[in-house]
Amino acid sequence: MTTNEAIKERASYRGKYLEEPVSRDALKIIMEAGLAAPSGCNRQTTSIVAVDDSDLLEQIRPLIKRVGATAPALIFVLSEKIASYRGNCYSIQDYSAAIENMLLQITELGYASCWVEGYMTDFKDGVGKQIAKILKIDSKFELVCCLPVGKPAEEIKRVEKKPFEERAWFNLEK
Amino acid sequence: MTTNEAIKERASYRGKYLEEPVSRDALKIIMEAGLAAPSGCNRQTTSIVAVDDSDLLEQIRPLIKRVGATAPALIFVLSEKIASYRGNCYSIQDYSAAIENMLLQITELGYASCWVEGYMTDFKDGVGKQIAKILKIDSKFELVCCLPVGKPAEEIKRVEKKPFEERAWFNLEK
Repeated sequence: MTTNEAIKERASYRGKYLEEPVSRDALKIIMEAGLAAPSGCNRQTTSIVAVDDSDLLEQIRPLIKRVGATAPALIFVLSEKIASYRGNCYSIQDYSAAIENMLLQITELGYASCWVEGYMTDFKDGVGKQIAKILKIDSKFELVCCLPVGKPAEEIKRVEKKPFEERAWFNLEK
Repeated sequence: MTTNEAIKERASYRGKYLEEPVSRDALKIIMEAGLAAPSGCNRQTTSIVAVDDSDLLEQIRPLIKRVGATAPALIFVLSEKIASYRGNCYSIQDYSAAIENMLLQITELGYASCWVEGYMTDFKDGVGKQIAKILKIDSKFELVCCLPVGKPAEEIKRVEKKPFEERAWFNLEK
């Protein structure tokens, strides 16, 4: 699949997944794609944990509840707030680029996924913190995102986007 | 180029560019790749302006100074702070995913680029604000990033990254 095809093909999948497992090789390719993303001043503030162990999945799934709860593998994105260019922190940018790389790689490998962030980090649930506890993740990291990975059991629907002309321009001032 | 190849090939290029222009078709493919990125609750908070007009480039280049100043085209990323999931704003995530898509698409098309953000937004320079003024960009947008686009005149160097084992794990708790 070309890059352009993967970019157009990627969609946020919120349906059920088939039980068919995702191989370790595939998970590693996806994780490596995430780690290959750029980061502010190469600070590499993003780390990744993939969960495919059935006991762990059983503990985590009740917390996930909806999007991705049936996926055979879950990738969690961890972020560290490290100062970069001129003392500013670009960790959100860093992990977002890593997530997008992983979503495209997941698409190329024929799997479905969805960027589940707000539900992990929003204080009303504290879901990310609970999952970090189960996985015994070092407290220096914040668990910022869950990417379910698996073969979709339902049709992948695409959201409608505004036309190009409403969001993009050439040489704007004229 | 496969997605995996583009992900591995992408690098932050800070050298000089050849004068060879970037076609409008290529610029549009890159911009469309950016717009195809996901956004929190599909709020589409990211917009894009590509500059290839020689008069405008002449006005903007002295502000760019270093990275990308010789590029035949400059893509500026615009962001709107719009509330999304549970009233939180995910505009940084949105534009970062759009930028990563564009960097991969630029790579696939055989061009070089670099994610230039801090230099645009850091208050010490106010470069982004000055460029937004030249381009008469609507004040509802913040100019958050510049992506130079062009054929590299020098060798593309890759930064070294930590090994996989230091940044990624399977089923961490064991």
